[in-house]
Amino acid sequence: MNILVTGAAGFLGRRLIEALLQRGSLSDRHGVQQPIQRILAFDVVPLTGIDDPRVQPLCGDLAEPEVLQQLVDANTDSIFHLAAIVSSQAEQDFELGMRVNFTATQQLLERARALGTCPRWVMTSSVAVFGGDLPDQVEDQQVWAPQSSYGTQKAMNDLLLADYSRRGFVDGRSLRMPTIVVRPGKPNMAASSFASGIIREPLNGQESVCPVPLATKLWLLSPALAIKNLIHGHELTAEQLTQGRVINLPGLSISVGEMIEALRTVAGEAVVSKIRHEPNPAIERIVSSWPGAFTATYAKSLGFTADDDFKEVIRQFATENHPT
Amino acid sequence: MNILVTGAAGFLGRRLIEALLQRGSLSDRHGVQQPIQRILAFDVVPLTGIDDPRVQPLCGDLAEPEVLQQLVDANTDSIFHLAAIVSSQAEQDFELGMRVNFTATQQLLERARALGTCPRWVMTSSVAVFGGDLPDQVEDQQVWAPQSSYGTQKAMNDLLLADYSRRGFVDGRSLRMPTIVVRPGKPNMAASSFASGIIREPLNGQESVCPVPLATKLWLLSPALAIKNLIHGHELTAEQLTQGRVINLPGLSISVGEMIEALRTVAGEAVVSKIRHEPNPAIERIVSSWPGAFTATYAKSLGFTADDDFKEVIRQFATENHPT
Repeated sequence: MNILVTGAAGFLGRRLIEALLQRGSLSDRHGVQQPIQRILAFDVVPLTGIDDPRVQPLCGDLAEPEVLQQLVDANTDSIFHLAAIVSSQAEQDFELGMRVNFTATQQLLERARALGTCPRWVMTSSVAVFGGDLPDQVEDQQVWAPQSSYGTQKAMNDLLLADYSRRGFVDGRSLRMPTIVVRPGKPNMAASSFASGIIREPLNGQESVCPVPLATKLWLLSPALAIKNLIHGHELTAEQLTQGRVINLPGLSISVGEMIEALRTVAGEAVVSKIRHEPNPAIERIVSSWPGAFTATYAKSLGFTADDDFKEVIRQFATENHPT
Repeated sequence: MNILVTGAAGFLGRRLIEALLQRGSLSDRHGVQQPIQRILAFDVVPLTGIDDPRVQPLCGDLAEPEVLQQLVDANTDSIFHLAAIVSSQAEQDFELGMRVNFTATQQLLERARALGTCPRWVMTSSVAVFGGDLPDQVEDQQVWAPQSSYGTQKAMNDLLLADYSRRGFVDGRSLRMPTIVVRPGKPNMAASSFASGIIREPLNGQESVCPVPLATKLWLLSPALAIKNLIHGHELTAEQLTQGRVINLPGLSISVGEMIEALRTVAGEAVVSKIRHEPNPAIERIVSSWPGAFTATYAKSLGFTADDDFKEVIRQFATENHPT
């Protein structure tokens, strides 16, 4: 199997590549496990720290059409398209968001169509495609009504991927990811960045700002299950995808207050005291437009999975990031 | 008011221009009626037969970026963007459909954004954005699941227009049109072309083919109300659009069998006998994926209107096209 991963140096991309290398094989179009021969690891910054002859790092800007030509060739079996400009940044820089989040996806799909090889295509979408007047639990039939340019761009990608799949240009699966928590590393310009920050920074003895009310409901998924679900999404056969190519993933519905309570249980009061509450209307506007819970009926029927205890998610993060 | 109409030589475009000329004014951004000074009437074929100094015909290909630059300038107050490649043709020629239905819309929106003048923008969308497992009556909250490239392209336009409106680049209103019946003229490559054909051709003493089962439910709107609703959509203030910029219009839910019965009542058995039943699986697949009825709650609350008697729609067509 020849695999392309975009956004390879990002948090999910790196973990996905590590998981793929460890796994060693993926399903081909006939449902047969085939050894992974090459992973083209593409990102705007170099992927470092993964030393494996199967991994071929490549650096470039997805917004440049010539770059896209190098990413997919007739031997490309599978594409994990994870690269994106995150929500707050896409809101601040409309042109950059459109270019990277939508136009690059469109051009990458066009490249695959031109080759005529119908590669398997796994893509991350987002709960940010939803908004407006929402029920407590969003069903798979809920209309899309993005309240951000990021959500708009992701929804347009979903539509394109579904049509390219229907026409046989690619064999696509777009996974609507919950907010991934706890991300390691630094805060980023995702509007949801605080959701990891209020756990990660206090555990590291640093202050963290919570910009939204405690009652704000989030729909979360741990990094481990995000990777597991991405690979599961790849391994499903096209025949299993009876209700389309765009899949609202299961997740854990939890309020910010409950997240902080879980942190108190796991790590104690001194850690929780590092959280400072400082409302940020711009972030609150975006985050509160996202649904706090989904039925994810289709995804569950396909075998996608969710975390059931946020304390476990915190412990998992603490173990991975502070090995004793 | 300086107005652009794309698709001006088409059936709806021509009628819209005639209605605008007769009306003489449109609401400006402050809600004040202003005289119509110029209508730039753009299409790929020349608009003929409308002789009015306010109308400035312009011919060109929307798929060419240079053309778009000529269409919108800083004086453009309002845009009626009606131009499209119809459903069956967009299905047959994927590239042409994408270029005209989506890319041209995107570039026209970009042109408006670059000017920074926030023109009012009225656009036709389609019930073809829906598909899959649908309830008998589609609600405004129904997820989009296009089963055709045409529906995909229209849904992407809707998303873009909503985001451009949210950001203040344009003041958009996308109207999800029912199937317009009875269209005058010749059959076209719309999958829904037969819906007018089975009324129009028999009334003209010609044979017509019905390619779908009699039980097929359609969601219809007469040409007169289509134009009335397009202008109504323009005249609404931005403040009235509390539930977004994409509006499922009201219509008349009727089966193909009921349409034929109405024709029998209005025009008699000899006329109905001109209809030949000849199943066409390609057309049936597309048409049967469209919903047959909508609640159109939001649209009704905004004052959009529908026909209530298909016999009246037939009589209206017969009167307009066979003046005695």
